[in-house]
Amino acid sequence: MKIFQIENTLVATARITQLENHRLLVVREKNGSRSVAVDPIGCKEGDWVIAVGSSAAKDAAGHAKYPSDLTIVGIIDYWETGEAGEAAG
Amino acid sequence: MKIFQIENTLVATARITQLENHRLLVVREKNGSRSVAVDPIGCKEGDWVIAVGSSAAKDAAGHAKYPSDLTIVGIIDYWETGEAGEAAG
Amino acid sequence: MKIFQIENTLVATARITQLENHRLLVVREKNGSRSVAVDPIGCKEGDWVIAVGSSAAKDAAGHAKYPSDLTIVGIIDYWETGEAGEAAG
Amino acid sequence: MKIFQIENTLVATARITQLENHRLLVVREKNGSRSVAVDPIGCKEGDWVIAVGSSAAKDAAGHAKYPSDLTIVGIIDYWETGEAGEAAG
Amino acid sequence: MKIFQIENTLVATARITQLENHRLLVVREKNGSRSVAVDPIGCKEGDWVIAVGSSAAKDAAGHAKYPSDLTIVGIIDYWETGEAGEAAG
Repeated sequence: MKIFQIENTLVATARITQLENHRLLVVREKNGSRSVAVDPIGCKEGDWVIAVGSSAAKDAAGHAKYPSDLTIVGIIDYWETGEAGEAAG
Repeated sequence: MKIFQIENTLVATARITQLENHRLLVVREKNGSRSVAVDPIGCKEGDWVIAVGSSAAKDAAGHAKYPSDLTIVGIIDYWETGEAGEAAG
Repeated sequence: MKIFQIENTLVATARITQLENHRLLVVREKNGSRSVAVDPIGCKEGDWVIAVGSSAAKDAAGHAKYPSDLTIVGIIDYWETGEAGEAAG
Repeated sequence: MKIFQIENTLVATARITQLENHRLLVVREKNGSRSVAVDPIGCKEGDWVIAVGSSAAKDAAGHAKYPSDLTIVGIIDYWETGEAGEAAG
Repeated sequence: MKIFQIENTLVATARITQLENHRLLVVREKNGSRSVAVDPIGCKEGDWVIAVGSSAAKDAAGHAKYPSDLTIVGIIDYWETGEAGEAAG
């Protein structure tokens, strides 16, 4: 799993029906690269979360045919975000 | 899922039969790297879209044996593309 | 899917039996990184092709247990290879 | 599989139920990039381990529907960590 | 599939039982990044090999539930390793 920070909700009106009404969030890794994740938990902007990729993202989003390759599975209670924290590792 | 911008249609006459007559599009990430995605929605050049990878791309393209590892699942209604947008994150 | 150019045939006499007699080709992305792909089409050196990865590469190579993570699925009719083409995107 | 060093336990109280009570650890590759792995073995801080990704991470964590894309599968008895070791490769 | 050179055997006494007694090898890509692969063939140090990733690594290592995401599938008979070879591509 990877660690991401929630940026904001993604609005995509034209979509395949399999996406259903799940919430899609833009999330960002510490190195700045953005992805889009399915949110089955209910995160808010700024939250640090862990998200699962690969085929595990499908079941985590609800069922084995859900079209997700990145699904949030938990909200992190505490995570150091400063560069000092990164160096101290 | 990742965010891409549609570049253009890819023409590949010699192909395996499992690809059927699905539209293949060249798509580009913000960092410039290109991929080829199956388009079940009907996107046009310049659209910003989200596409799913991993094994979820197969079902998203139609069925569990379709040979896709990247399938467009939605067209983004709004997405900041400028560097300023990137910095503001 | 990713875009690759065919370099040459890979010879690997000692191999697991599941690889059968499929042709293996060294392919190269525009950024220079090399991979090895199964070729069910019949490509020749210099061809630009699209290849599928992830679990979809197995079925594309013939059946669900074929040990491939990269299988060529089509030969591109036209692809700009120059830097100018890249900038024009 | 990739080689990681254990950093610390990750606390994520709000989580999807499928994660059960498995231990989640922050792990770091030699190049510094962090991931979160499921630990079915019982590692301690500083241990060098191997972890499996892709769909194999699910079964390694217990069963085919467990939402993991990175699961620790072994603790390395010996691993060179210095730059000299890296150069000697 | 990717091309790797065999470095050495990895010793991991504490491991999950699903790993069985398969040989685990540290392998290195040309760009220097290391991974750990299951070796069902019997490679020796210095060999250049091809290894399969993704879910195909499981069957290649023996069966659909084997916890591998990287399995060696063939030993390359000839591979240019010098920078000249790389430039000549």
